[in-house]
Order: sequence, then structure tokens, then C-alpha cells
Amino acid sequence: MATKRVGARTLRFGEPPAVQSWAAVVGKREGEGPLGNRFDRIHRDTLLGEKSWEKAESRMQSEALTLALEKAGVESDDVDVIYAGDLMNQCIATSFGMRSFGRPLIGLYGACSTMAEGLMSASMAIDGGFADTAAALTSSHFASAERQYRTPLEYGAQRTPTAQWTATASGAALLHAKLSGGRSSEPRVTYALPGRIVDLGIKDANNMGAAMAPAAADTLLALFRDTGTTPADYDLVVTGDLGVVGFDLLRALLKREGVEPGVSMNDCGLLLFDREREDVHAGASGCGCSAAVLCAMLLPELERGRLKRIVFAGTGALLSPTSSMQGESIPGICHAVVIEAGEGAGAQC
Amino acid sequence: MATKRVGARTLRFGEPPAVQSWAAVVGKREGEGPLGNRFDRIHRDTLLGEKSWEKAESRMQSEALTLALEKAGVESDDVDVIYAGDLMNQCIATSFGMRSFGRPLIGLYGACSTMAEGLMSASMAIDGGFADTAAALTSSHFASAERQYRTPLEYGAQRTPTAQWTATASGAALLHAKLSGGRSSEPRVTYALPGRIVDLGIKDANNMGAAMAPAAADTLLALFRDTGTTPADYDLVVTGDLGVVGFDLLRALLKREGVEPGVSMNDCGLLLFDREREDVHAGASGCGCSAAVLCAMLLPELERGRLKRIVFAGTGALLSPTSSMQGESIPGICHAVVIEAGEGAGAQC
Repeated sequence: MATKRVGARTLRFGEPPAVQSWAAVVGKREGEGPLGNRFDRIHRDTLLGEKSWEKAESRMQSEALTLALEKAGVESDDVDVIYAGDLMNQCIATSFGMRSFGRPLIGLYGACSTMAEGLMSASMAIDGGFADTAAALTSSHFASAERQYRTPLEYGAQRTPTAQWTATASGAALLHAKLSGGRSSEPRVTYALPGRIVDLGIKDANNMGAAMAPAAADTLLALFRDTGTTPADYDLVVTGDLGVVGFDLLRALLKREGVEPGVSMNDCGLLLFDREREDVHAGASGCGCSAAVLCAMLLPELERGRLKRIVFAGTGALLSPTSSMQGESIPGICHAVVIEAGEGAGAQC
Repeated sequence: MATKRVGARTLRFGEPPAVQSWAAVVGKREGEGPLGNRFDRIHRDTLLGEKSWEKAESRMQSEALTLALEKAGVESDDVDVIYAGDLMNQCIATSFGMRSFGRPLIGLYGACSTMAEGLMSASMAIDGGFADTAAALTSSHFASAERQYRTPLEYGAQRTPTAQWTATASGAALLHAKLSGGRSSEPRVTYALPGRIVDLGIKDANNMGAAMAPAAADTLLALFRDTGTTPADYDLVVTGDLGVVGFDLLRALLKREGVEPGVSMNDCGLLLFDREREDVHAGASGCGCSAAVLCAMLLPELERGRLKRIVFAGTGALLSPTSSMQGESIPGICHAVVIEAGEGAGAQC
């Protein structure tokens, strides 16, 4: 079998799987942000007509996958496997959101790195010959996350400047084997790098960007080394949700290792909201943040050919309220995928 | 590329990955059960010398992987990827247990189906060409699970007859590409089937066996259909942790579909404890239950050639206390792998 690895840790897909469709469903605040006109659906009702925020989050996942399937003209019965997960205890947004689809589900837990973890896993399943069509999706919801991780919203607790705002959002991507046809403009997943846990001892659960930045640096440095690239070789190197504090730290960490971050780097946590206008402190976070930015902005720009080659590096803080209350620090993880424009990208613009 | 699928949903590994080593670490009660002399390590101290049950559970995972690595003579740096997850909120047993290994980690969430999900995923990574060596592991801890899912132990809450006893246990398996050498007696993963969510509306969180049985039936029926086999074609068809109530239901469901369960069926939740002697009600449960039974009993029996071919079907109840309190039913899932004895199995007995 041809090797599918490059260097120490990077996976190289022999027949890069293509992303045939995608969809992003978000809440009101996200819809009023800089990417507002790019989302597939914006819900002004935080509950989406459901009886709880948790059920609303499940519904967002279900809607995102349904929209992605509709766009591709694919029946849900033709999805061989779904990779999904979320931030809720026991990943209930996924279990209840995916329940009605009746398709094989491989549940993931990667905190806010889940979308990248899912894209990587779905690409491995397809390029490994185990699936023709696979979905990757995730979600987060501001109110369900606050209730679970912090204090009831009714307390009106003060937020620190390093805190981030959990996105109310879900993003779903549908991948298939390129050999099975599709548009020549479909973006393709060419490389992936599964992250390892990095924990430099940050204990402040209101500063998750700082806790995740070392993991992002570890993953990006490994990817650049394995593939002989630098940030300048990509139109965009985008992390999941480091926010302004973590993103600055990441840039400093890369510089310390002799890698010039340059102008192509950005962070989904800085792209989702306008920090000048919205009171979101250090930026956006949550599984849904990077998933929605990917599906509303990055994949469309790749299809249009305005982006040719990007690194999408999902970042996750693997803490729980219990681990924090027991005095533990915050382990970080970062999974990365390289996505490139299809040869026919931009032809239809 | 040669197809790696059989029938509607079954994955067939082209070069079946081999399980080169395994280890099971358990608590006192598990050590006093029928499998007591088969575990690698039995801890009489529920805390394992740690300050909390959660940290003790992390330590069990870390010990199980360390023991499996030692048995195989493999350095942790040579593990390409770890697939792991657990029952704790945000899977902290895994995040903190795996932190010190510094290896790529793909976090899973499958509740008590995690060991089967991990074996399947690790086999896909290896047979897909993405890893030479991969680990699959999980854990559960009676006290950390009770605290999180039910009531503080100090309340002394009454348990219903259908309730199961969460195993304090961790199991780790180390897989590698068969082409990379190893003993001819190593068990091999030949087929896998990713489960789908099945939810028939059971709402009693003290009867998870009943909630999971329909998912187990769905997966096993699909596997039998796709591969043209029946339970009689296997030395053992073993579910994860249905317990006595769920296991009886599964047998009834199979019969209703014209499949004779026969004598080769069993359940890890019935193998771990002696229900006559121990007050464990319907049997054992928890991610660690099937993982420990696999690593203490099933894989060794395959290596010795006393078992030739088994189905290991992990069963998961995808509920959370929040979903139950919000009136939701319990979605079940079941991932299955077929494991066969190596051609040299039993030679050294």
C-alpha cells in the first residue's frame, strides 16, 4: 500500500476527498456579525422553537446536516458515516441531533477542535476505502454552554477581558470520494495532522485561548516541518477559536521557533464577531465557531477560487468544570487539515 | 482501490490489523469477581493514591496503556495515534490520562461502546494506511460515574433491580499493521460495523440495558446479513454491557427477526461480576466493563486459540443527566468488530 504519511506526523491523502456541500446555521448575534450575509440560516429565536437550549442546539445540528444534504442532492441514506461531536456533557447535541437520520455515527470528542477532527476522520474513512460519502459536523450554543460550564445566565456574572463568547452555531460538511464525480470546483482535503495534548499549566478557565495556543503551535510547526511549508505558502492559516489573547500568543510561539506568521494567519474566533461593535471580549469560541466560519466563508471562498490553499486548524480546550474545580490545568489540542481549491475552482464566478 | 465494504454497512479490512498487546487495570470488586486472576493489575484503593475519583480514573487509563506498551516492547513515541474516550463530562479521564504520553489523540465519544468504537477506528487508521501502530482504550470508575450521573454516594440512594453497576476498570489494546511483523498468534480485526442511533423511547435511566438492546440488535442483524453469518458461525458473540435485562431483550429481538441467538452469545456485563454473589443487580456497565473483559479474557483466549472468531459489540447509552431531566428518551448505539485468532494461535499453549 502506498504510504499515506509525510514526515513525522502528517497524513497525506492519496486521492484527496472532496467537500461536495456544506451549510452553516447560526443564532441572532452571529447573524448580525461581519459574516452575517453568508450563513444559510439565521435564527432570531435562541430556542429555535424548542423547549430548552440543549434541544435548540441539537436542532441546529440537524438543520445544518439537512441543508448540506439538500444542497448536494444527496439522500441521507446515502451517507455512509457521520463524524460528529459537541461540547455538551455526553455530547447530547449530537446524539439527539443525529438521532433521526438513522445513519452510522462515529461520535467524537475534541472540544472546539471537533470540526477539524471530523474533517480529518471523514477524509481518512473515505481515502481509506471505508466510505464513499461521509459527513462532519458540530455545534455550540451560547446559552447551553454558559449554563453547563459557568453560571446560570440569570446570575449576570461578570466576564473577564480574556473570556470568549461561545458561538451559537452549527456547521456541517459533506465529503465524498473524488472518484465518484462531483463538481471540478469542489475543495479537496489534501493533508491532515492529528494533534497531541499540550498543557503548559494554564489554569484560568476564562483564558482558554492561552491554554490552546501552545497546542496550535505544536500542530502547525509539525505540519510546516513535515510538508516543508511556511505560513506564506498558504492563502490562509486559520485557527479555530484562540481569540485575540491566544492568537497573539500563537504568533509569538511561532516566531520563537523561527517561523514568521506573516499576513496569512487568522483565527475564526476573530472572524465571527466584530470585536469593536460587539461585547464579546477576546472573541468567539465554541465548536460551532470554526465550523460556521468554515462552512459560511472558507469553503465558499475555496470553491470560488479566491482561496487556493488553506490550513484549517481546530483548537480545543479539554477541560471540564470538574477538572477546573479540582485544581487541574487546561490541556489543549489542535487538529489540522489542509484544504485546497479544486482545479475548476472559480470557473463559475 | 479495492473495496473495503461488504453489504450495506460492514467494513472489511484488506490487511486485517493485529492486536499485538493489551492490558486491563481494575478495582477491588472487579478483582474479586470471576475474572479476578486474569487482570494485569487490581487496585484495592478506590482512589489509586490520587486525590479524587476522576484523577483515579485518569490514572487507570494511563496505567493500562503503559502496561500494554511494556508488554509489546513498544515505546510510546512509536504509537502513531491513540483513540480514546470515556464517560466523564468532556471525557476528562482520557484528556488527563493521555496528557503525559504526548502522542496524537483522536478523542471519541460513544459512551459504553467506546472500546469497540476505538478498535474499529484504530483498525481503519491502520488498514487505511494512516498509522502503523495505534492504541484503543477507555475507562470507567464506579464512584466518578455515580457522582456525575446519579446522586452523591453519601446519600445511599436505593438502586432498582434493572440498574447496573459501573465497572471500575480500564482496558487498552495496541494494534499494528500485520505486515510490520509480530507474533503469528496475534488476534486480528477482520470486520467492523459502525452503529447507528436507535431509540425506541425508553426513558428509565436505571434501565440502560433495555435502551441499548435495540441498537445491539440493529448492528448484529446488519453484520450477520452483510457477511452471511449467524451467531453459530462465531465462538462468541459478546455485547458490551446490556446486563441481564437488556441481554434477554436482545435475544428476543434477534429471534423475532428469525435469527437464533444460540449458545455462543454472551454479555460482558454478565461476565465481569458474579451476580449471585455480588449485589450488582442487572450486571456490570461502564466503558471499562467491555474493555476490561476484552483485554483480560477475550483477547488472551483468541491468542491461545480457544476462541477462533468472535463478534465484540460495544453498546452505548447516549444519555446525559440533563437530557433525562428534560424528559428525553435514551438513544442507544452499538459498534461491532469481528476479531479472529491468528494462524499461529494456540501454538505456545
